[in-house]
Amino acid sequence: MKIKVLQDILSANDGIARRNQERLDKYGILTINVMASPGAGKTSLILQTISNLKSETRIAVIEGDISSTLDANKVQKQGVEVVQINTAGGCHLDANMTEIALNNLPLEDIDLLLIENVGNLVCPAEFALGEHKRVMLLSLPEGDDKPYKYPLMFTEADVVLLNKIDLLPHLEFNLPAFHKAVSGLNPKGKIFQVSCKTGEGLEDWFSWLQNEIKKTKSRLGS
Amino acid sequence: MKIKVLQDILSANDGIARRNQERLDKYGILTINVMASPGAGKTSLILQTISNLKSETRIAVIEGDISSTLDANKVQKQGVEVVQINTAGGCHLDANMTEIALNNLPLEDIDLLLIENVGNLVCPAEFALGEHKRVMLLSLPEGDDKPYKYPLMFTEADVVLLNKIDLLPHLEFNLPAFHKAVSGLNPKGKIFQVSCKTGEGLEDWFSWLQNEIKKTKSRLGS
Repeated sequence: MKIKVLQDILSANDGIARRNQERLDKYGILTINVMASPGAGKTSLILQTISNLKSETRIAVIEGDISSTLDANKVQKQGVEVVQINTAGGCHLDANMTEIALNNLPLEDIDLLLIENVGNLVCPAEFALGEHKRVMLLSLPEGDDKPYKYPLMFTEADVVLLNKIDLLPHLEFNLPAFHKAVSGLNPKGKIFQVSCKTGEGLEDWFSWLQNEIKKTKSRLGS
Repeated sequence: MKIKVLQDILSANDGIARRNQERLDKYGILTINVMASPGAGKTSLILQTISNLKSETRIAVIEGDISSTLDANKVQKQGVEVVQINTAGGCHLDANMTEIALNNLPLEDIDLLLIENVGNLVCPAEFALGEHKRVMLLSLPEGDDKPYKYPLMFTEADVVLLNKIDLLPHLEFNLPAFHKAVSGLNPKGKIFQVSCKTGEGLEDWFSWLQNEIKKTKSRLGS
């Protein structure tokens, strides 16, 4: 019975997610769901992305948080459109919340929509929002064993960003073991080693994004 | 309707949690629910605690994980009783899972039961297990703004352990701002700054635990 209820919720969510994606496709907006543990660097990645791509790309952001508008405030200072969703205790965004956020964005003026999910390595992976790609960050201090302990998110991510690589000299983190674990779960997923603080390695992320934006425009003929 | 279902679940959980606590009280077992984000140092804290207290205290551990027995294996090597709960996707432990774990522990031979919850700064705080005290870790790399973004866990913790304090020279972490934020949410909660890697600051945690074990024994007259 419990499982039945959960399936109903997930199936209703998937329906709204499909509707969101059709709407985003209509406007040719590449949409990325950014997921990670608390403090892994989601907001820093979004700020770096805005700062490096905003001259050539029209970017908007949906910020998901349990409470507070701390991250939305940081994003707004960069001069891009941002909508804050407060989940009031909920541990992930869902498609319905995303739809409401879309209603509050100028969709005709956006090329790239970045959605920052609630900090959580578990539930966000179960709820589609309407995104085209899923990106997750793991930060080095979280440890190299995390793919084994939180496998779903690592399995579903199109890109895994290994963040805070600048801390490598101060931590015991087995890079080959981490790469092997991720590749085992997700042979097609890309892994980029980056530092959102120093900027190291972010060129690969920017190139991937720019290429995906081009593919979206060309796929939709816009 | 959705809220009604959630309340039913929470209220059923609370009933089982009370039953668990009565059972733990019968045996005079101080029980601690250890909560944190993935990779914040829950297992390291438990291993340090075992290594420092096991000569005078009979310790057992319940390990909660979505999948894998990585942490339970580490704990078992220390020669203490351990039960692994795999939640199969669930993002927190609940009282029912805890009851099943208790059925598999030699309760008459335990003074201190440490329960490692699933790595998640959100949902574990909503589900009582039957524990006497709630302890959370925040690791320095997660950032000093986390009390504002995940307030419930900081509000409900009896002890907040600020872990990985050895990384302070390499990070921008505002200690006074963090202390102010936690005290604002939770004036009675204790804050200990520790490194489970170097052992720095852990004496305060051990003293607090030993005192709580004494209080439990004296309260229950065992």
